[in-house]
Amino acid sequence: MSKGLTSREEDYSQWYNELVGKADMAEHSAVRGCMVIKPYGYAIWENMQAALDKMFKDTGHSNAYFPLFIPKSFFSKEASHVEGFATECAVVTHYRLKNDGNGNIIVDEDAKLEEELIVRPTSETIIWNTYKGWIQSYRDLPILVNQWANVVRWEMRTRLFLRTAEFLWQEGHTAHASSQEAIEETERMLEVYADFAENWMALPVVRGKKTANERFAGALDTYCIEALMQDGKALQAGTSHFLGQNFAKAFDVKFTSKEGKLDYVWATSWGVSTRLIGALIMAHSDDSGLILPPKLAPIQVVIVPIYRSDEELDKISAIAKELAAELKLKNISVKYDDRDTLRPGFKFAEYEMKGVPVRLAIGGRDLENGTIEIARRDTKEKQTISRDGLVLHIEELLVDIQNSIFKKALNFREENTREANSYEEFKELLDTKAGFISAHWDGTPETEKQIKDETKATIRCIPLNNKLENGHCIVTGNPSTQRVLFARAY
Amino acid sequence: MSKGLTSREEDYSQWYNELVGKADMAEHSAVRGCMVIKPYGYAIWENMQAALDKMFKDTGHSNAYFPLFIPKSFFSKEASHVEGFATECAVVTHYRLKNDGNGNIIVDEDAKLEEELIVRPTSETIIWNTYKGWIQSYRDLPILVNQWANVVRWEMRTRLFLRTAEFLWQEGHTAHASSQEAIEETERMLEVYADFAENWMALPVVRGKKTANERFAGALDTYCIEALMQDGKALQAGTSHFLGQNFAKAFDVKFTSKEGKLDYVWATSWGVSTRLIGALIMAHSDDSGLILPPKLAPIQVVIVPIYRSDEELDKISAIAKELAAELKLKNISVKYDDRDTLRPGFKFAEYEMKGVPVRLAIGGRDLENGTIEIARRDTKEKQTISRDGLVLHIEELLVDIQNSIFKKALNFREENTREANSYEEFKELLDTKAGFISAHWDGTPETEKQIKDETKATIRCIPLNNKLENGHCIVTGNPSTQRVLFARAY
Ligand SMILES: [Zn+2]
Ligand SMILES: [Zn+2]
Repeated sequence: MSKGLTSREEDYSQWYNELVGKADMAEHSAVRGCMVIKPYGYAIWENMQAALDKMFKDTGHSNAYFPLFIPKSFFSKEASHVEGFATECAVVTHYRLKNDGNGNIIVDEDAKLEEELIVRPTSETIIWNTYKGWIQSYRDLPILVNQWANVVRWEMRTRLFLRTAEFLWQEGHTAHASSQEAIEETERMLEVYADFAENWMALPVVRGKKTANERFAGALDTYCIEALMQDGKALQAGTSHFLGQNFAKAFDVKFTSKEGKLDYVWATSWGVSTRLIGALIMAHSDDSGLILPPKLAPIQVVIVPIYRSDEELDKISAIAKELAAELKLKNISVKYDDRDTLRPGFKFAEYEMKGVPVRLAIGGRDLENGTIEIARRDTKEKQTISRDGLVLHIEELLVDIQNSIFKKALNFREENTREANSYEEFKELLDTKAGFISAHWDGTPETEKQIKDETKATIRCIPLNNKLENGHCIVTGNPSTQRVLFARAY
Repeated sequence: MSKGLTSREEDYSQWYNELVGKADMAEHSAVRGCMVIKPYGYAIWENMQAALDKMFKDTGHSNAYFPLFIPKSFFSKEASHVEGFATECAVVTHYRLKNDGNGNIIVDEDAKLEEELIVRPTSETIIWNTYKGWIQSYRDLPILVNQWANVVRWEMRTRLFLRTAEFLWQEGHTAHASSQEAIEETERMLEVYADFAENWMALPVVRGKKTANERFAGALDTYCIEALMQDGKALQAGTSHFLGQNFAKAFDVKFTSKEGKLDYVWATSWGVSTRLIGALIMAHSDDSGLILPPKLAPIQVVIVPIYRSDEELDKISAIAKELAAELKLKNISVKYDDRDTLRPGFKFAEYEMKGVPVRLAIGGRDLENGTIEIARRDTKEKQTISRDGLVLHIEELLVDIQNSIFKKALNFREENTREANSYEEFKELLDTKAGFISAHWDGTPETEKQIKDETKATIRCIPLNNKLENGHCIVTGNPSTQRVLFARAY
């Protein structure tokens, strides 16, 4: 462990960058915009994947795999899609290198592709081109498929996990016989994401719909979950799109209904990415390092021995190993750190930085008294307790930590969601308190754009089940029937 | 289900292609050389991944993720590596498309990369460039990291699973403080692969070393496992490479030893890919379709109702659902197929095609007698047995099937491994019986190449623990101390 972190108050952005490095989560690679996800960061992603994958399968989905490359012409087939994705993408033009005779490796111009290939930024086009071959009749529907994959969207300004050229994600792509069924699927998967965010990531989210301006390129409706970070900026944590018949029309995918009628197929797509790791870090962590919800922590409990002699260490190790075995039986992941090259204080700081939810320490006095020191990472509270009943105590503590950090984040969000009733008030709130601002808007893209240009705040969503309330747009004064949620966002 | 398969005897290659399609495993995509892995095929890969991933973690490895792209210059840093991989690869040259004003999407020449990026064909270079930042002293070693990823090697002639431009794989990349430790790791991971092949895939393999000609580009030693397919051709099912200090030297990765000496780091890499699915198909399946080892089968047991009335179906369904629940409690994956649009005979053929190991059928007479019909896919044996004790019977049957198909494949390999003591005999065996041929070779790359050019047979490996035996090279007559294993191969 090197020195501590820049504090959040001093420089939130710097705090985040240092934390990602010092907690051994990820680093920039030699390839501009691409990150290396280090083992500790990747272990969190694996835990996220396992939980999400089970939720997808429990709702009837299967995984499959589609090509990394998409023929350039596919992008032009859905008009709004090409505008959204063709502009910043990695283009494969050749399929061979050669030695130029002077010892330099160069691109072989004889191996130029007839049609360029795009590294997928998202897979609607290649998947709907494939679905065409899979669908003839209503009997072939629904298709409920998900893909775990890497995607590339060229980015000049990158931040680890939050915005990188290559990132990992899952993308669900479903095909349905009716509009209603597709909308139900879109909403079902939004709820899966909200459930995951709240019950696994301990991250409270607002469920809502995007405005037309903020929709996915090619969608009729984009649903999203929005979370609030500690600096008062919002982060979109997942999206679920109702694509209507746009991609079916673009790729000519029709089916014969039960009634014998030919119609285009209805589509959804939905995705979350390694960006969630960025959200997890920013939502909960403090100036000492990561705070991880126990359900996603790679190490849930760490045991550190404090000893003055080899004899003492042997006795402590015997207790630690027995305890570790008992915890493992309860499916609690535990690490016993008996490295003899590092002081306990150094190890304490390291596990604080890495956000291990529960730390146990066993010293000479504990040996005499049959006790153990137990510290929780979120509140840093320490207690010396009897080893009797310890496993049960830890099980309960892990549940308590999971709930506590959710409640803390929820309180933070509630305290930082404010109503603004004039544009002045809106701007002042943005600059002094940030957070979510609930305000009336006249429903036009023009006003939305004006607000964005003038304040950098965007409409994060129109919350689902929004309460109807007559009011006036904060900018134009035109009538409005509901408030929408604004924020500056990642 | 459409018509049956071309028989293996008639056209083995055609049989394979049809089987991959009819069992719903994979298909060619619109992108030349890239496949779509369909849900049923992908479910097999997920089972393989889960088993392998656990084995990797049990041997101390963690997963991480490195960039998809590799700067062109990295390839030139390890001389033999560039020859092996630079020739057929996907090259990214631009990072933007644009509209040409006439409604066509074209590559934006203003967005040309200064240095081309190669889509990884394998990740030694980008990983060793990263490890340079991770390693200073022996305390940072070993690094035991694995990556699950997609890779691209441009291929003109492709076959689903066996040879495709893009494929999925895992690649382990480890760093060690001594040559001996790296060699031990190389051998350990070869044994993990052999264990997986034999005990999960039911695929007997020969463990061996490649000759210098057949080594991985950049390795000092390549270990491999080789399996025999039903047409008598060999298939390399996994490789584990001892890389010496080649990549550490290419990327200047040094460490300070315990004794304070500066030295280059020792490396290994090892990988298996979706090619294993091709091996699985070709090793066990028959003219009715797939035969899957129960440990990797997505569906282990299917239950099909045979009924003449809704009332009968209700009674059968009650039994089937109870039975399915009991099987699930034993972690047996089970599907109850009560689709009412298809006849039982059609379903039987479909599950035969898909290689479901155990099929249960329940009919009217079974209702009366308290019985059930149980059929095993591998031998097609059918039995009518009492429903009492059925779950235990199925558990035992799944174990028996797993063992039986391994033994069958092992017998096949033993019957098809022959010694040749002259080049004449060698060539005749190749053309009449194929299989593995064990023969003396003088140890020179020239003779190896001559045999390959003249017969298309390659040295698959020098088996580990090979028995020493004085003899004469079948081509040159020069003295030899051991036989090596030849075959034509996939
Ligand atoms: Zn009014
Ligand atoms: Zn001799």
